[in-house]
Amino acid sequence: MVQRRLRIGVAGLGRAFSLMLPTFLRDPRVQLVAACDPRDEARKQFAADFGARTYADVAALADDPDVEVIYVASPHQFHARHTELAATKGKHVLVEKPMALGAADCDRMIAACRAAKVHLIVGHCHSFDTPYLRTRELIGRGNFGAVKMIQAVNYTDYLYRPRRPEELMTAEGGGAVFSQAAHQVDIVRLLAGSRAVRLRASVGGWDPSRPTEGAYSALIWFESGAYASLSYNGYGHFNSDEWTGWIGEMGERTSPDGYGAARRRLATLASMDGEAKLKSAGTYGGSAYKPPSAAEDEPPRLHQHFGPVIVSCERADLRPLPDSIVVYGDQQRETLPLPSPAVPRAEVIDELYGAVVDGQVPLHDGEWAKGTLEICLAILKSNEAGADVML
Amino acid sequence: MVQRRLRIGVAGLGRAFSLMLPTFLRDPRVQLVAACDPRDEARKQFAADFGARTYADVAALADDPDVEVIYVASPHQFHARHTELAATKGKHVLVEKPMALGAADCDRMIAACRAAKVHLIVGHCHSFDTPYLRTRELIGRGNFGAVKMIQAVNYTDYLYRPRRPEELMTAEGGGAVFSQAAHQVDIVRLLAGSRAVRLRASVGGWDPSRPTEGAYSALIWFESGAYASLSYNGYGHFNSDEWTGWIGEMGERTSPDGYGAARRRLATLASMDGEAKLKSAGTYGGSAYKPPSAAEDEPPRLHQHFGPVIVSCERADLRPLPDSIVVYGDQQRETLPLPSPAVPRAEVIDELYGAVVDGQVPLHDGEWAKGTLEICLAILKSNEAGADVML
Ligand SMILES: NC(=O)c1ccc[n+]([C@@H]2O[C@H](COP(=O)([O-])OP(=O)(O)OC[C@H]3O[C@@H](n4cnc5c(N)ncnc54)[C@H](O)[C@@H]3O)[C@@H](O)[C@H]2O)c1
Ligand SMILES: NC(=O)c1ccc[n+]([C@@H]2O[C@H](COP(=O)([O-])OP(=O)(O)OC[C@H]3O[C@@H](n4cnc5c(N)ncnc54)[C@H](O)[C@@H]3O)[C@@H](O)[C@H]2O)c1
Repeated sequence: MVQRRLRIGVAGLGRAFSLMLPTFLRDPRVQLVAACDPRDEARKQFAADFGARTYADVAALADDPDVEVIYVASPHQFHARHTELAATKGKHVLVEKPMALGAADCDRMIAACRAAKVHLIVGHCHSFDTPYLRTRELIGRGNFGAVKMIQAVNYTDYLYRPRRPEELMTAEGGGAVFSQAAHQVDIVRLLAGSRAVRLRASVGGWDPSRPTEGAYSALIWFESGAYASLSYNGYGHFNSDEWTGWIGEMGERTSPDGYGAARRRLATLASMDGEAKLKSAGTYGGSAYKPPSAAEDEPPRLHQHFGPVIVSCERADLRPLPDSIVVYGDQQRETLPLPSPAVPRAEVIDELYGAVVDGQVPLHDGEWAKGTLEICLAILKSNEAGADVML
Repeated sequence: MVQRRLRIGVAGLGRAFSLMLPTFLRDPRVQLVAACDPRDEARKQFAADFGARTYADVAALADDPDVEVIYVASPHQFHARHTELAATKGKHVLVEKPMALGAADCDRMIAACRAAKVHLIVGHCHSFDTPYLRTRELIGRGNFGAVKMIQAVNYTDYLYRPRRPEELMTAEGGGAVFSQAAHQVDIVRLLAGSRAVRLRASVGGWDPSRPTEGAYSALIWFESGAYASLSYNGYGHFNSDEWTGWIGEMGERTSPDGYGAARRRLATLASMDGEAKLKSAGTYGGSAYKPPSAAEDEPPRLHQHFGPVIVSCERADLRPLPDSIVVYGDQQRETLPLPSPAVPRAEVIDELYGAVVDGQVPLHDGEWAKGTLEICLAILKSNEAGADVML
């Protein structure tokens, strides 16, 4: 049986796109048919790579009758407008996390897609990663009892990866809460399997040269009575990949040896302008861009992840890992191996294709993702107000 | 130079005593000269082991003119009264954590010791462990900048170790907050180096057969602007020794293989009465008691610890471990090895001897330990009130 291929147009050929590219290249359920980006070199590369149409802006891309789905991978601040443009022209939307920068924007996106009868899916987000999805499934079977406590911790070099200026300004959607809590909160919500009802958080920002928050910790309470403790630190010191078997966020084998690489790379730059250029040079079409190669996957990658997570149920702890789920039961510990993914992030296509072609109800729809954004906004608000925020 | 030996009388020959016994046996600065315990078999064993005097109660022990220091290792609920009894008779006091069950008790203990001009030291507590003390020293030198964020996590089988009935009743001082937060909070305060000013916490209790809290998570804010995220889970599932190189709380080499041992051992018992008996059988003088042996220390133990801790300063993360402190700096990662301890918990004797003999100001005095108890009580209160508690 030959599957029909979803025809995707890409809005924004940057880092997010380059991280999804291996998926688009290898998953037979999708094909790239068009793209837009203000960067000329990115459009050229896309045209050369795929013999596909390119446009200077999203409005033109949305007018392309051959495009069925628009993958909105532009910077945060454009997600709302680009989603509305796409929906208005009857395109389904796959929009990157965070969905938008405010709840009102989310509402407009949801309304636009509903009015146009198109699907709205928010991702990639690490809550699509198979280890978390399978852990949720296992919990759902009921053998371990109710979820009671979740611990999620992630220490990365997030803050020292090359950034556009607005990515370092919280007021414009920069910082660890908008970009990183978007993943961690989504994972925790998925695993909790219950509505978050209140939150208390603290935010940390302590490098004046990166003037946004690079860290946060939060307590979240759920309707079910469960609670979660989340911590994130992107200051490029301790690396919690040590606690996931030295497997990195992208499922790649990492090692403690490259210590400090992100800071060293940044240190070669004199200005913010240079930094934004460094970011775009390393991204799709840029002078330092390296296309994904098959060789990159020898040895094959494991599942992607977003740091150590432990879900404590009444009768077991469950620990999703890049290659397995460890179930720490009352009597015994059991390791449930997870086959390595054939296509990275295929889970995103599962949901997109499932919705558009097979009529399945997606998990990561607009309402769901709005819930995650509201929690991210509440992290910032609780820190400022010095009190709980009711959700 | 022959050091003078502090003459110690022990009040309560239970598990805490058996954990301090290797210290008392090997540290040349102390000697055991007397003890009291209502358990006849414990008194007999003590008399046989040390040819020393034993008494049925603390009042009689405090009357022994040869005793200089009373080590109060009786159950929590007796700490206040036993400390007062000792002080009244002019004995210095080393009292086990938690100092007491309420702030008023702490005040009476402090007042009694002050009036009698004797020292009051609260410990052993894991904040005496060399890796934490050295980490605090390193931070104090100022090279890494201010402390900004602390993460402390500990997953153990605490709740399934054999217990006296009151240890499973929060109202009587049972549960993870009184017994375990007493360690973790003390460590975090030490490392923060600043006064805790507010707290938000959640507490978890989900095994009806162990009707007290076995888990908690807390956010603590400090005067300096730093914050800490603490999590503890004593449900005997995931074991965070995996994140400290499979070194256990007592500095011993552990392994993932004995999985579930605590629950299996408990499962052989029919009643709470049987459980209390199991606890005392395994403790000093009991039928199943194993004395500390030199052989136990081959290979030599490393430093004791209380779970993974990461201190994020402005320019480095510091990670105290049982055999080293890892400094994750801006440019490089450095491992500062810590020599294995010659005598376990010698740090407690350092402070006790330093205060009593050398006139040094102890860190873990009554005021300090009262501060930790107040935070533990605030964890319970914040959970009940559903709001921040100001300290
Ligand atoms: N899921 C993930 O793992 C992941 C990873 C990185 C980024 N992201 C998300 O993807 C989005 C983009 O981030 P990024 O890191 O790729 O940034 P980036 O700067 O690398 O890429 C953004 C791209 O969008 C283009 N662009 C800018 N304005 C545009 C417009 N008006 N129309 C179309 N294209 C436009 C830029 O030229 C650039 O090529 C963000 O929302 C981010 O949160 C997600
Ligand atoms: N620092 C540590 O690592 C550590 C470890 C375990 C216990 N503790 C602390 O030590 C204290 C005792 O706990 P435990 O686990 O040893 O309990 P336990 O039951 O093992 O020991 C208590 C001992 O005190 C005796 N006792 C009871 N009433 C007494 C009285 N009125 N006068 C004198 N002795 C009396 C009991 O017979 C028993 O031998 C607790 O406060 C606990 O928090 C500290």
